[in-house]
Formats: sequence, C-alpha cells, structure tokens
Amino acid sequence: MENFEIYNPVKAYFGRDVIQKLSKEVSERGKKVLLVYGKGSIKKNGIYDAAMEQLDKAGAEVYEYSGIKPNPIIDDVRAAVSLGKSKEVDMILAIGGGSVIDSAKVTAIGIAGDADPWEYVKGKETPHGAVPLIAVLTLAATGTELNRFAVVQNNATKEKIGFGYPPMYPAVSFLDPAYTISVSAEYTSFGITDLIAHALEAYFGRGDASLSDRFVFGIINEALEYGPQLMNDLTNYDLRARIMYAATMALNNLTAYGRKSGDWGVHSIGHVLSVLYDVPHGASLSIAYPAWLRLHKDRSADRIIFLGKNLFGISSVDETLIAFEDYFTSIGSPIRLSQTSYGDYSESKIIDTLRSNKVSGMHHRLSGEDHNKLVEIML
Amino acid sequence: MENFEIYNPVKAYFGRDVIQKLSKEVSERGKKVLLVYGKGSIKKNGIYDAAMEQLDKAGAEVYEYSGIKPNPIIDDVRAAVSLGKSKEVDMILAIGGGSVIDSAKVTAIGIAGDADPWEYVKGKETPHGAVPLIAVLTLAATGTELNRFAVVQNNATKEKIGFGYPPMYPAVSFLDPAYTISVSAEYTSFGITDLIAHALEAYFGRGDASLSDRFVFGIINEALEYGPQLMNDLTNYDLRARIMYAATMALNNLTAYGRKSGDWGVHSIGHVLSVLYDVPHGASLSIAYPAWLRLHKDRSADRIIFLGKNLFGISSVDETLIAFEDYFTSIGSPIRLSQTSYGDYSESKIIDTLRSNKVSGMHHRLSGEDHNKLVEIML
Repeated sequence: MENFEIYNPVKAYFGRDVIQKLSKEVSERGKKVLLVYGKGSIKKNGIYDAAMEQLDKAGAEVYEYSGIKPNPIIDDVRAAVSLGKSKEVDMILAIGGGSVIDSAKVTAIGIAGDADPWEYVKGKETPHGAVPLIAVLTLAATGTELNRFAVVQNNATKEKIGFGYPPMYPAVSFLDPAYTISVSAEYTSFGITDLIAHALEAYFGRGDASLSDRFVFGIINEALEYGPQLMNDLTNYDLRARIMYAATMALNNLTAYGRKSGDWGVHSIGHVLSVLYDVPHGASLSIAYPAWLRLHKDRSADRIIFLGKNLFGISSVDETLIAFEDYFTSIGSPIRLSQTSYGDYSESKIIDTLRSNKVSGMHHRLSGEDHNKLVEIML
Repeated sequence: MENFEIYNPVKAYFGRDVIQKLSKEVSERGKKVLLVYGKGSIKKNGIYDAAMEQLDKAGAEVYEYSGIKPNPIIDDVRAAVSLGKSKEVDMILAIGGGSVIDSAKVTAIGIAGDADPWEYVKGKETPHGAVPLIAVLTLAATGTELNRFAVVQNNATKEKIGFGYPPMYPAVSFLDPAYTISVSAEYTSFGITDLIAHALEAYFGRGDASLSDRFVFGIINEALEYGPQLMNDLTNYDLRARIMYAATMALNNLTAYGRKSGDWGVHSIGHVLSVLYDVPHGASLSIAYPAWLRLHKDRSADRIIFLGKNLFGISSVDETLIAFEDYFTSIGSPIRLSQTSYGDYSESKIIDTLRSNKVSGMHHRLSGEDHNKLVEIML
C-alpha cells in the first residue's frame, strides 16, 4: 500500500426532499448568490422553483448564469466568473449534472482568484481559495458532487481536461434521487456507464490496494445489479437512489486510497471523442473502455481476470471483455462509434488528436501504435 | 434506502513516517498542547520520542495526562479536563488506541464546555464545541481515529456507554501502520475482531442499503483474508497496513449510509462483560457475536445466509455461525468465556447487569429471556 491522505470535507444531504435544507445552508453563507444552471430543463421539472423558494426564504439576492453545455466550455466559465466578480457574490449555487457543477467549481476558484480560469485548468496557476459552492445534483453520473475534480473543454484549442484542487470541493451537496427521475433513458444509461468507468480507472491505476479494489467491485456490482432494473423502470425512486449513491461513491476518493494514482487513460480517450464530435461523456466511455480493455488483454491479463471473477464470476479475459460489452449494450450505451451518429467520424482525425493531446494513462502508457489500434476497435 | 447525511471532516495521514507532518498540524492550532496517553508503552517503542520531537519543532508547551486504562474510565476524563482547563490548552494530542483517543474526545468537549463530562456520555447535555483533537493511532481496532464516537466506562455506576457527537471528530489523525507492529498477538487479534464486529453491527441494523452491505462484505473479507496472515507475521508492515486501513473504514460512517441505524446490541453485551470483568473489548465481541448470531439464527436467517454467501461462499445459517467461530478461534480470539480467565464469571451477575443496563440492539430488541440464552451460550 502507498502512503495516502484521507480527506473529503463535503457535507451531502441524500434523499427525498432534502432541498428543504437549502435555505439554512444559504443563509449561513451570505446573501448574494450566483445561480448556475444549464439549458433550462430545471424550469420544466420543478427543481428551479423549489430552489427559488428556498432562496427567497433565505432572503438571497440571486444572479443567474445559465446555458452551460453538456460538454462544458471555458468560455461559459469565464463569463460566469465575470458576473460573479461584478456582483461580488458570497456563494455559488449550481443546479445540474456534472457539466454545470464542474463549471461552477472552476467559477468558484476563478472568482476568488485573479488568473484566467483556463490557467487553473492547465495547472499553470494554483488556486488559493474559492467562494463556497452549493451543488444540487440532477444527474447521477460524474460524482462531482462529492469530489474536487472538474472537466472543462476549450473549443479554441480542442482540449478537454480533467483536473482537481482541494478548494473545488463543494461546501454542501444536495442529492435527491427524485431529481433524476426525469432524466432520459439515454442519459441514465450514460450515467451508469460513467460511474462504472470511474471505478475502473481507479482499479487499473498504479499500486496494490486490496480494500480499495473490493470497494470498486462493490460499486460496479451495484451498477450491474440495479442498472438494468432502472433502465426498465426509470421512474422508480428506489432504483434511482441506488444508482445515484453508487455514482457518488465511485469518484469521491474511496476507490483511490492506497494507490499511487488511478489510470484515467480511457477518460482521456473519451475526451477526444467529445471534443471532436460532441459525443456525450458516458457514451464516449462505453466506446473507449471496451477498446482499451482489448488493447490490454495480454498486458493486464491478471487484473482483467481478477475483475471478471469479482464482477461476473468468470475467469477468462475474453469472456470478461464480452461481459462488459454485453452489459453496456444491455443498458443502451454504445460500444462502437459506428453505432452512433454524433458526427462524421474520421479515423485519421481522431488519431491525430489522440497524438497531439498526448493521450495516455497515468499508469498504462499509450503509444502511437496503441492510438491506431484503439481507434480501429472504436470505429 | 433511508435519507442520510454524508459528512466526515477528519483529515488523516496514512502510511510510513507520516508523523513528520505533526509539527505543521500543531503549529497551525496554537502552542499549548494537552498530551494524553496510556500506561507508557509509547515510551518504549519510540512513538513518544518521535511525537515530542515534532512538538519541540512546533515550539509547543506540553502538559501530559497519562495512565488511560484499556477500558477507559470517566474519572480519567474528568482529571484530564481539569488539567486542560487550568492550562488553557489550544489542542489535545492523543497517542494511543481506542481507549486513549476516546478519552481525549470526551476531554475535548469537556474542556470546551461546562458540564460534568459524564453528562455528555449519558446524553443529558449536548456539547457545542471542542478543542481541536489530533490523534496518533497505535492500535488498529476501534476506528475512533476517523469517527465521532467514543466509549467510556463509569465504575461507580457499572455502566459502559458508546455515544457520538459531531464535535468529537478528530481534526487530524495520523495512521502509521509501523506504529502497530509492537502490538501483541492477543491485542492484534482483538483488533481484527473489533473491526469485523463494527461492520456486522452496521449490517444487522435497520434499513435496506445494498451498497453499504457490499462495503461491509469488502471490509470483512479484507480481515478474513489478511487477518490470519498477519497473525502469522506480526511484524509485516504491509499486512499491518491492510488491517489498519480496514479497521478505519469499518466505523467511519461508510457502512451506515442509507440505513436508519446500526444494531449495536452485541457491543452492548460486550460492554457488560468488560465492565464486570475487565474483559478486553475485542475479546468481549468474539464471545458475544457467536452467541448473538445463534440467538438470531431463525429470526434473521435470510440476512445470515446472505452474509455467509458473501463472506464464506456458503449458504447455510449453521455453517455461517461455525465459520465465524472458526475464524475467531483461528486468529486467537476467544468465543466462550470459559476459554478465558478475566474473572470469576457469575451467570446471574451477568444476566442481572444485562437487565439493569437494559441491554438491547437498536434494531433487534433483546428480551429478558434472550439475556438468559445469550449468557448460557457465552459461558
């Protein structure tokens, strides 16, 4: 086991109607609130109204920044930072999924700092603080509600980068599974894929952490058991709750303790598909993981077999690969680009971008030859 | 799933030589340190010296309270509170196992408050704050280093009570597996038993929390796999690390999320054995759990079978009971009082104390008739 540090200060309210505690949490932090959200679906499903009622109760002054995109872009973050600075907000309230909360995290350090936000993303500047962030989650997927990570895209430079800083932990998160009931079948499936991918990125990282491996198996097995049930019963609160909780535990440090690092190569591959063709994050992962596993079937045979045993009760590499593909397919997440129509895919363009972005894992390095093979399988 | 709140603010340094970070953590919190420890074994194994070097480096004024007993008593807490108040300490540094850290937790709320510390233990007063507590762990067992709980005994009233308050979370904990290498075989075994018992108390609680169940299985399986290896190789750092980490995760809220409550009936039974005969905590649990499981073999057959399947790969209640007894025996933890000589056991005295203390679980209630049966099995 490697040395490690345990720390996660987020307070999260999980369950039905937890939004009732929002006004108290807002009042404790001030008056001026920068409200960040996406394209307005929260106005249709009642979540916006529920939050506004709480903000009224707290006597808050609310400044809205909306229109955050599913693959969030740095231009929105810059604009939100400007608004937050000009209004001297006391806190940010982010209502949405990973894209909204991630954008709000970068906005929170951006408001507290002086640098252009992209400098933090690139690791050229270190943030020294943040305005407090309160997150209301509407999509079970990224785990951002309980971690210090964010992913932001820069359309000018064709980069999509994941990064993390301690000041980016939300102060408080609200996780009401009922808020995810209106999520479409497609995005529900992508969320399940995303949580599985997070657990796998930890599992394929560097270092021997037996208990963290067991937690990985627990989280993925939860998704294997309840994911398909949820896909058949999308309005079931209890199933929504189990998947929401699994997604939260899949990327809140728990699976990382005792390792030197996760791998995150598959996420880097997925980000290229998203930045080139706007492939939804979860779909990019259900396409990239099978390819990555196939590429590593000899290099990491032992780890893949150990995984297969603990997830599917099988002890063959090939059967494990097929079991993953069958599972993603069963919940409606694509495993090849050819099954999708997000863009007019170009083999050479994808390979070029994998190369120019130096796409690789932190543990399992990827060569140029690997990039070629990955794209061949993914297409 | 029940509604629940995720919150655990403890920062913990885990690994070799993490004590090097102590001086920084002390300096950030002030100058005057109340150092709390037990009967002085930390002076023999070098931990005291390593901590004093760090305290020197931080320029700390140190006031010592030592002599905390393995089953910690409220009289020591009262005396430590007096010392801490008279010296106006800025923080407490506790070096030891569960008894020392638990005593320090109650001391921390006692110094910050006005009530007699026993009032907090009994729940008659609510603490509103605490002086910061830094914990250096020397025994893998109770998980106190990462939670808000403590257990303290009152010899005058023959009560041993577990309780918890948010201000009792340590601010920082140091977990160096090397610090547990000098722990005797006996207490190593009791620590393993304790961590298993903690996971089981969550498992047999109220509420349907599938992912928390999986975490329970992960933690206990870790102990099942590495516990016996450690008993055969007590100076192995890596095995000490795996058991230390499992113990920390066994009682830091992780297994409780989504449940209405744990059960904790077995701990209440064990506390009676400790208060009457000074039975070490872990030994009291390896004696009480088999009896409790036998008592519940029909009442909770489904849960016991599900447990047996996930831990031992067997699907019979009776075989699961035997597997637990065999396991405790294999690591050297007693499963019957008759295997021990902590006192001159009296069936009627134990039964009387179970009754007068109204010993029961929060989920599985215990009747007077149950008390009789339990004692019959335990003897």
